[in-house]
Amino acid sequence: MSQKIRIDLNSDVGESFGIYKLGLDEEVIPHLTSANIACGFHGGDPGVMRKTVSLAKQYGVEVGAHPGFPDLIGFGRRNIDATLEDIRDYVVYQTGALQAFAVSQGLRLQHMKAHGALYNMAVANPKIWEAMADAVSRVDKEIILVALASSKNESLLEMGRRHGIRIAFEAFPDRAYRNDGSLVPRREKEAVIEDHEVVARRALKMALEGKVIAIDGTEIELRPDTLCVHGDNPAAVQMVKKIREELKASGVNVISMKWFV
Amino acid sequence: MSQKIRIDLNSDVGESFGIYKLGLDEEVIPHLTSANIACGFHGGDPGVMRKTVSLAKQYGVEVGAHPGFPDLIGFGRRNIDATLEDIRDYVVYQTGALQAFAVSQGLRLQHMKAHGALYNMAVANPKIWEAMADAVSRVDKEIILVALASSKNESLLEMGRRHGIRIAFEAFPDRAYRNDGSLVPRREKEAVIEDHEVVARRALKMALEGKVIAIDGTEIELRPDTLCVHGDNPAAVQMVKKIREELKASGVNVISMKWFV
Amino acid sequence: MSQKIRIDLNSDVGESFGIYKLGLDEEVIPHLTSANIACGFHGGDPGVMRKTVSLAKQYGVEVGAHPGFPDLIGFGRRNIDATLEDIRDYVVYQTGALQAFAVSQGLRLQHMKAHGALYNMAVANPKIWEAMADAVSRVDKEIILVALASSKNESLLEMGRRHGIRIAFEAFPDRAYRNDGSLVPRREKEAVIEDHEVVARRALKMALEGKVIAIDGTEIELRPDTLCVHGDNPAAVQMVKKIREELKASGVNVISMKWFV
Amino acid sequence: MSQKIRIDLNSDVGESFGIYKLGLDEEVIPHLTSANIACGFHGGDPGVMRKTVSLAKQYGVEVGAHPGFPDLIGFGRRNIDATLEDIRDYVVYQTGALQAFAVSQGLRLQHMKAHGALYNMAVANPKIWEAMADAVSRVDKEIILVALASSKNESLLEMGRRHGIRIAFEAFPDRAYRNDGSLVPRREKEAVIEDHEVVARRALKMALEGKVIAIDGTEIELRPDTLCVHGDNPAAVQMVKKIREELKASGVNVISMKWFV
Repeated sequence: MSQKIRIDLNSDVGESFGIYKLGLDEEVIPHLTSANIACGFHGGDPGVMRKTVSLAKQYGVEVGAHPGFPDLIGFGRRNIDATLEDIRDYVVYQTGALQAFAVSQGLRLQHMKAHGALYNMAVANPKIWEAMADAVSRVDKEIILVALASSKNESLLEMGRRHGIRIAFEAFPDRAYRNDGSLVPRREKEAVIEDHEVVARRALKMALEGKVIAIDGTEIELRPDTLCVHGDNPAAVQMVKKIREELKASGVNVISMKWFV
Repeated sequence: MSQKIRIDLNSDVGESFGIYKLGLDEEVIPHLTSANIACGFHGGDPGVMRKTVSLAKQYGVEVGAHPGFPDLIGFGRRNIDATLEDIRDYVVYQTGALQAFAVSQGLRLQHMKAHGALYNMAVANPKIWEAMADAVSRVDKEIILVALASSKNESLLEMGRRHGIRIAFEAFPDRAYRNDGSLVPRREKEAVIEDHEVVARRALKMALEGKVIAIDGTEIELRPDTLCVHGDNPAAVQMVKKIREELKASGVNVISMKWFV
Repeated sequence: MSQKIRIDLNSDVGESFGIYKLGLDEEVIPHLTSANIACGFHGGDPGVMRKTVSLAKQYGVEVGAHPGFPDLIGFGRRNIDATLEDIRDYVVYQTGALQAFAVSQGLRLQHMKAHGALYNMAVANPKIWEAMADAVSRVDKEIILVALASSKNESLLEMGRRHGIRIAFEAFPDRAYRNDGSLVPRREKEAVIEDHEVVARRALKMALEGKVIAIDGTEIELRPDTLCVHGDNPAAVQMVKKIREELKASGVNVISMKWFV
Repeated sequence: MSQKIRIDLNSDVGESFGIYKLGLDEEVIPHLTSANIACGFHGGDPGVMRKTVSLAKQYGVEVGAHPGFPDLIGFGRRNIDATLEDIRDYVVYQTGALQAFAVSQGLRLQHMKAHGALYNMAVANPKIWEAMADAVSRVDKEIILVALASSKNESLLEMGRRHGIRIAFEAFPDRAYRNDGSLVPRREKEAVIEDHEVVARRALKMALEGKVIAIDGTEIELRPDTLCVHGDNPAAVQMVKKIREELKASGVNVISMKWFV
């Protein structure tokens, strides 16, 4: 009996701050299986965190911490020359803060996914994944660490085992890949794929075959557990809906990562 | 057989921030039974929180969250016209952040004591104690809420029971009291008692009889569980040492509040 | 020969922060004569300040500083128990920062208008107007201080003379007034007038007669120099346009306050 | 008739924040000719800025802006991947804020010297000096830009001429130099020279001959206009005093850079 293919859909939410609203959380959350919730350093504030956890709970979407650098003015998108110890401390702090909002609503964090520059710096420097794994494993070994799917999956899994935590690999259907499995940087003009049909097709291929076609035409293997989608605007939300429908129509089981990672 | 009188000694610590050092934590913590650790809003930062938890652990001192208003420039000492919901969210956030540092070192928070203006506003408005009790009880019902010992102890205990949490009452040996059990505000010149002998005597009376002599000479009942002491400077640390020694010499059992509250 | 009636139109702009966008500055600024630009404490950041000054310059709109409390999470709308010295320092700092952006584009600040809670606290406590007047007069005596038009205009003018600065009085066409000339607080349900026709009529009456009908039907005198309008959403912008057109149609000279205050 | 050799002594001051005190400003300022005053991003706050300007004024010491990255938690010592436009805006903002405190006390800024990572990043990337020169020249062409003395002095002078501003070159008597004129990075163990005698001797050689002995024994030319000294602790203040006395004893005219740059 063949087992059904499973995939998780995650998105960055809860990034509003004070009076400032960002993203269509109310609209995109119902289509997700995992919500990455900002924790107050690059976006989000205590009230936004509470409300976003509540929204995810309402739709049965798993919640995760989405920590970033303490750089609200740069939205956590700028590399900061922080030490590994700083990074570990930032992750412990923010994960704990969000865990408290989850627990206060009868939930527990499913996962932790770093934001922006912190995520990108980890992709470039595995010692940062290690600092994050250390942080997460110390706070709660049930929390899954989300990392970029690439040719380095095996070494990250090994790292996760050392820390006693699970790793989920993530791919980006709307981002161009190089043939070494890395993302084309955003500053390059072909980095982001706008065409909804193409993005949905890539999402399907990622889920069904675990593969993506790189920018030079090479087919590369990613074997992602979760696909990252966006809720920045109405069109983005429509795309998420479309991706989820097409995945289901192709027999993919769209469920939260905690059930299969 | 008479039971030994028990008292806890608490102090605000972990209030350094980045390069800025505040307080003699290394020197005062060994003399405490409960450490109130700042959580990053009015003081403290993730690295300071980690180090302060570690220091408390090293001396077997119980750790507690010491949340304040998001007002670093005013050190959390200025009233901010925040809503009860804001306050609840600020307490959940900061308590969760510190809980994560405690857990990551194999500890759990014993208590939560609000800082500065947040504490003073609660003394003036019991709805704020209620918001804090709600926050704490949602995060972890084992966390003891520290409140000002006064004639209102009973109603606060009743509030604690409603939320399923314990309340510890605190008194200030170095602060003058009015005859209604409230503290003389700091802006008044007799608010703080400088004489170490007098402070130690007041601490003893608070522990042994549960009473204090108010500024008008009236003896009033406070029945505190914990005495708040300071580690701002070498003299303050000496005073803490002296208070602890005199309490012990008088047969008082100086232990963490969790054992008897 | 009768002199033409003159009125200024001001609005709070430049309140975006980092990635967070707030208000339709591009659309509302062309209809103003004075732009109150946030200075980084409650909203605004250095890049937003530069761009907003540039936008105002493009449309020949005078620029002013719009300082607030250091409370980004509360958008400067919460009373903070700051000292008069704090307030003076906050105003000097923020006014200087914006003056530098003005000067760097060949402009100079026309005015200073406090934001949110800082403004409201000044209305309640004239010592705060005094602290602001002191701050402004020390930075640049050409900067006009904008204050709420009320029965206290004379005493504020006298204060301005003492500090060697001009005072401009402001009225709010879309806000209900009490018969003592104070604004009905926002938390009361009749505080804000939504009907565009009514608001435009009130604006006209304010400009032409210097008067407003209070919530109890009494006609009261305000003699405003400037009317505060909003650019929060497309409807608000339409209202500003309508107000300006009707003022012009009635023969009012809509010009920057510096020409007549 | 030979002209007397002139040198300026500068130091970073005004770096306290809120309740947090840093540096012995009261003690070091009397020995300086130029005070670099933090502007609220990496340290300093509006009240501290006012008080530090006042202290400098009292001793006839020239004031300058000392802007840094918006990174209080890292004290502006961590590289942040900011754009040139960000940097220009940060410098305009902070310089303007401090200018307002200077003007409000009847002074004007003499100079601008970047702090920490911002300074170091400029040393590594001349486009950042250019962004700063652009910022300073737009705010006030009388403000002197302080840059690291090195073999690149000529190209920086040329840059200054293009922007219509003066450049002052700075050297560090207590820092080791490489033979290319760059500073040995702080993370290397020989970076900072502790021996007061040696430091004073180096200061003299810098002032009298414009030269320093690099770490490999090579004599290199720096031709500094100003020497950077420190007031972190009593020993540092003693060193400043000693340096100034020895400079005077050797016939060097210790005066503010504005008189000769």
